Amino acid sequence: MNDAHSMKQSQLFTKTRREAPKDEVSKNAQLLIRAGFVHKEMAGVYDLLPLGLRTFEKIVGIIREEMNGIGGQELSMTSLQRKELWEKTGRWSDEAVDVWFKSEFKTGGEVGFGWTHEEPLTALMREHISSYKDLPAYPYQFQTKFRNETRAKSGLMRTREFVMKDLYSFSKNENEHLKFYDACAAAYERIFARAGIGDKTYKTFASGGSFSKFSHEYQTVSEAGEDIIYINEAKKIAINKEVFTDEVKKDLGLGNDFTEAKSIEVGNIFTLGARFSEPLGLTYKDESGKDIPVFMGCYGIGPARLMATIAELLSDEKGLVWPESVAPFAVHLVELSNGNEDVKNEAAELYRELSEAGVEVLWDDRDARAGEKFADSDLIGIPLRVIVSEKTLAAGKFECVERGSGRTTHQSVSELISELTHA
Amino acid sequence: MNDAHSMKQSQLFTKTRREAPKDEVSKNAQLLIRAGFVHKEMAGVYDLLPLGLRTFEKIVGIIREEMNGIGGQELSMTSLQRKELWEKTGRWSDEAVDVWFKSEFKTGGEVGFGWTHEEPLTALMREHISSYKDLPAYPYQFQTKFRNETRAKSGLMRTREFVMKDLYSFSKNENEHLKFYDACAAAYERIFARAGIGDKTYKTFASGGSFSKFSHEYQTVSEAGEDIIYINEAKKIAINKEVFTDEVKKDLGLGNDFTEAKSIEVGNIFTLGARFSEPLGLTYKDESGKDIPVFMGCYGIGPARLMATIAELLSDEKGLVWPESVAPFAVHLVELSNGNEDVKNEAAELYRELSEAGVEVLWDDRDARAGEKFADSDLIGIPLRVIVSEKTLAAGKFECVERGSGRTTHQSVSELISELTHA
Repeated sequence: MNDAHSMKQSQLFTKTRREAPKDEVSKNAQLLIRAGFVHKEMAGVYDLLPLGLRTFEKIVGIIREEMNGIGGQELSMTSLQRKELWEKTGRWSDEAVDVWFKSEFKTGGEVGFGWTHEEPLTALMREHISSYKDLPAYPYQFQTKFRNETRAKSGLMRTREFVMKDLYSFSKNENEHLKFYDACAAAYERIFARAGIGDKTYKTFASGGSFSKFSHEYQTVSEAGEDIIYINEAKKIAINKEVFTDEVKKDLGLGNDFTEAKSIEVGNIFTLGARFSEPLGLTYKDESGKDIPVFMGCYGIGPARLMATIAELLSDEKGLVWPESVAPFAVHLVELSNGNEDVKNEAAELYRELSEAGVEVLWDDRDARAGEKFADSDLIGIPLRVIVSEKTLAAGKFECVERGSGRTTHQSVSELISELTHA
Repeated sequence: MNDAHSMKQSQLFTKTRREAPKDEVSKNAQLLIRAGFVHKEMAGVYDLLPLGLRTFEKIVGIIREEMNGIGGQELSMTSLQRKELWEKTGRWSDEAVDVWFKSEFKTGGEVGFGWTHEEPLTALMREHISSYKDLPAYPYQFQTKFRNETRAKSGLMRTREFVMKDLYSFSKNENEHLKFYDACAAAYERIFARAGIGDKTYKTFASGGSFSKFSHEYQTVSEAGEDIIYINEAKKIAINKEVFTDEVKKDLGLGNDFTEAKSIEVGNIFTLGARFSEPLGLTYKDESGKDIPVFMGCYGIGPARLMATIAELLSDEKGLVWPESVAPFAVHLVELSNGNEDVKNEAAELYRELSEAGVEVLWDDRDARAGEKFADSDLIGIPLRVIVSEKTLAAGKFECVERGSGRTTHQSVSELISELTHA
């Protein structure tokens, strides 16, 4: 995302704060605001500050890699939505959909701000799909959704404006659809594992639609969650409370061994069938020349919600604790010079060598007390802190502290580079 | 932007079209739609399709590199805007600003969709700037602006929803401001040169505000432009018609040697002074402890307008002609196999070798006639076409055609790789 891989902290314009805003009750937003990752514009509306944008883009990068890996093709659609299109699927009226933001063109006529993109994408695909030879297709995007939520109190978990990775699958039939559905489920599991929350995340049976009995959610166990799930630990799957009935348990052959837990929905996959292709006229000609409605599915992940989930789960009383895969920087280089030029020079040299080796470094070159630097470093949560001081200069090795475990080692530049670049 | 560097054309879901939509009168949108780079949702509202998104992201990458190079720090703000904030600067009412899209929260109260971001960013910076030690700071973003335009007829030049790179400078005083202003001007010149339109783009004097006599625009000469400028070719600068007076010419010491031209505004830089910091209370304490309003500037470029400008300027009667720096792929590998398996295998092998060398390849592996493949290739405008056919197989070298010049060469794999990777 950023060719400025490394950065001096004296040039980072954001400051940490001792206290979160008084009206902010959720732990994820409190920590992310205090550490300077996000700024609250109003309830349910958050800006991404430089540190937050870096972590956000790392998450986006993981998702993009996995979506490209299963044949996804990235595009980017608009927020502005045509009324006429959504009327065809019965999703324009405020009675049918209660999260629309709507406005009016100066030139006349209503316009909506997209809260999802089945309608415009299905309409768009009519120009590119006409034959069975054009299928399957898997377009996806990282795009801003607007949702006029009445309840926005869980920090970055439920917001009124957020980027969503939404992929839509276009298949010839249910069989072809289900193959992709499973491939996407596997990709989702890799994404959550890579983001550091795999062990607490369960593929969860939830209510389906007219074309399938179930949809699937990925639910991460957390007290901050808004959902209730019933986990079968042996099979590592769960059932959402909304469909947790004896019939469903029997259907799934799961017996009665469940643990109830609060959880955060970090992703979902959904069979749509012909729900949108039929009213919007997206059909293809099969080998016999017959017109068949395209069989669709949709697959969502909100990268900022994922960031907030990691913040909830992996933080401690001192602050954030990022896994290496999504940390804004790999190393927090803390210089304790007390005006000692040799220490300053040593820190500058280490900064240069690590950066040149491709390691992303945040160098705390500020003129501040050690206590303040350590507190900030704990709060920001970069995985490895490397301390350069008179003491380390004398010892000939740097003091390295892992943010998560607190484990301390002493390493030379070459040892550090070899560890950090997995060389 | 994309770890899927190379792609088979059979898997690209978009198709080229012979004709643009009838209601599309601008050349840039006609070409970009026909080649499958963009899709028109409605007047002034365009989606970026995979090819368009790739070129868009290349342009974003160039701008990001140059902004980071002058000390910019990337963040990402929200579209949703608080009424109370904009009332303080007198820019909430529809009388003062005629491009607002506004809506209402379900929970009550008006909300706006940002058409620029001086107000929220100035308010945000109050939390991070308090002392002269915190200055200067140069936050910027690539963020979606919504503008309720009554006139949206120039294709992607003037749209109702578009991403803008907007950087805002926060300085201690005018002197510090002007140093950055000049550094940003130089960065803008590098950006337009790298994007292939440097020779047709002029730094142009335009009307200023309360804090400076002039602002500066970057204007690219084109019949598709909406502006009129007067160019002094000797000094490679221009004056916008709106301030082209005898007094201004004299002020700038430019004599009377001007050429009139239509032009596209591809960027602008603007001195804001205390226009926003004063009403919003963004001050800093100087070394004597006195409160001083922060001195601001703003600096904009629209990457999609830049893409459209390149499409207008560098295209020919056959289609788009992208410079290497912003092309969606570096090589269009056109396989003419006629079912010949040796040709197919040779194309697959070339695709693999080029991709592994880091070259981005679009491989036309489709079962289509040579004429159709060449027409599509011309329309899409990838800089280098490499043909693999029975003829090239016999010759032992690939036929390579430059899209811009039509120059044809015959090269081996290793010659190609060495040319394309500048090794």
